[in-house]
Amino acid sequence: MGREIEHKFLVDTSLWRPDGPGVVLRQGYLSTDKERVVRVRTAGPKAYLTIKGPGHISRAEFEYEIPFADASFMLDHLCLPGVIEKTRYRQPVGAHIWEIDVFHGENDGLVLAEVELRGDDEAFEHPDWALREVSNDARYFNAALSQKPFKSWA
Amino acid sequence: MGREIEHKFLVDTSLWRPDGPGVVLRQGYLSTDKERVVRVRTAGPKAYLTIKGPGHISRAEFEYEIPFADASFMLDHLCLPGVIEKTRYRQPVGAHIWEIDVFHGENDGLVLAEVELRGDDEAFEHPDWALREVSNDARYFNAALSQKPFKSWA
Repeated sequence: MGREIEHKFLVDTSLWRPDGPGVVLRQGYLSTDKERVVRVRTAGPKAYLTIKGPGHISRAEFEYEIPFADASFMLDHLCLPGVIEKTRYRQPVGAHIWEIDVFHGENDGLVLAEVELRGDDEAFEHPDWALREVSNDARYFNAALSQKPFKSWA
Repeated sequence: MGREIEHKFLVDTSLWRPDGPGVVLRQGYLSTDKERVVRVRTAGPKAYLTIKGPGHISRAEFEYEIPFADASFMLDHLCLPGVIEKTRYRQPVGAHIWEIDVFHGENDGLVLAEVELRGDDEAFEHPDWALREVSNDARYFNAALSQKPFKSWA
């Protein structure tokens, strides 16, 4: 088991630009229950099944690599409606690698950045393009975005 | 992906006796949604994560072996309440191996037998201890037994 400690921010797209090619992610959910999220994801040619326990900034997480064809079948036939597509860019900021997700489809217009920490009180550099923190805002959870996408917000 | 074709029967315990040691199974569910069941199981020293699509007798199934410690954590902390414990015996009947599950705990008193076939129209020998077929009776699905166990039935 891993334990994820993540902080998530809205991105000011007038200040941030990709500094390299991204990886296309497709992800869907077999469970969006907050106590036991089950996510299926393809990331480029790889695929993963991920179980997440309760919590937002810090949560138990188990991830297993699975065959790409299995994940594609699950995304197309078994997952709840609302598969998310986004391009993920990774770039260093100070001592950390940030992941910037540019959403497509029903979540077009949304850009989120995440930094993963090893401890609850670990310091990190805050880039100028990282706006408001939304780590605890349930609307921005990917499981929530799959069910109520960004473009449907009022 | 596999595709399971299974027939499930109630067992007459006055006629059936184990012919060898069984394996203790513990299993719980991250999703009991009939369209996308997610099962966590330990079987003796091994552990598995299994995704099942819709259907009863024939259904899509994906199974991945995972570390025993991961599965134990999920059973103890992440799964829906209602972990099933049962002892599984395997024994040959004609050309097939039958699996006989003797349930414990909240499902004590229930004994079910399953035979897995390769094709929808494959013939199989019906042992005298296999009573009524319950393949399509939703009460006997393990996901249902975890939520509404046998001992709670009227």
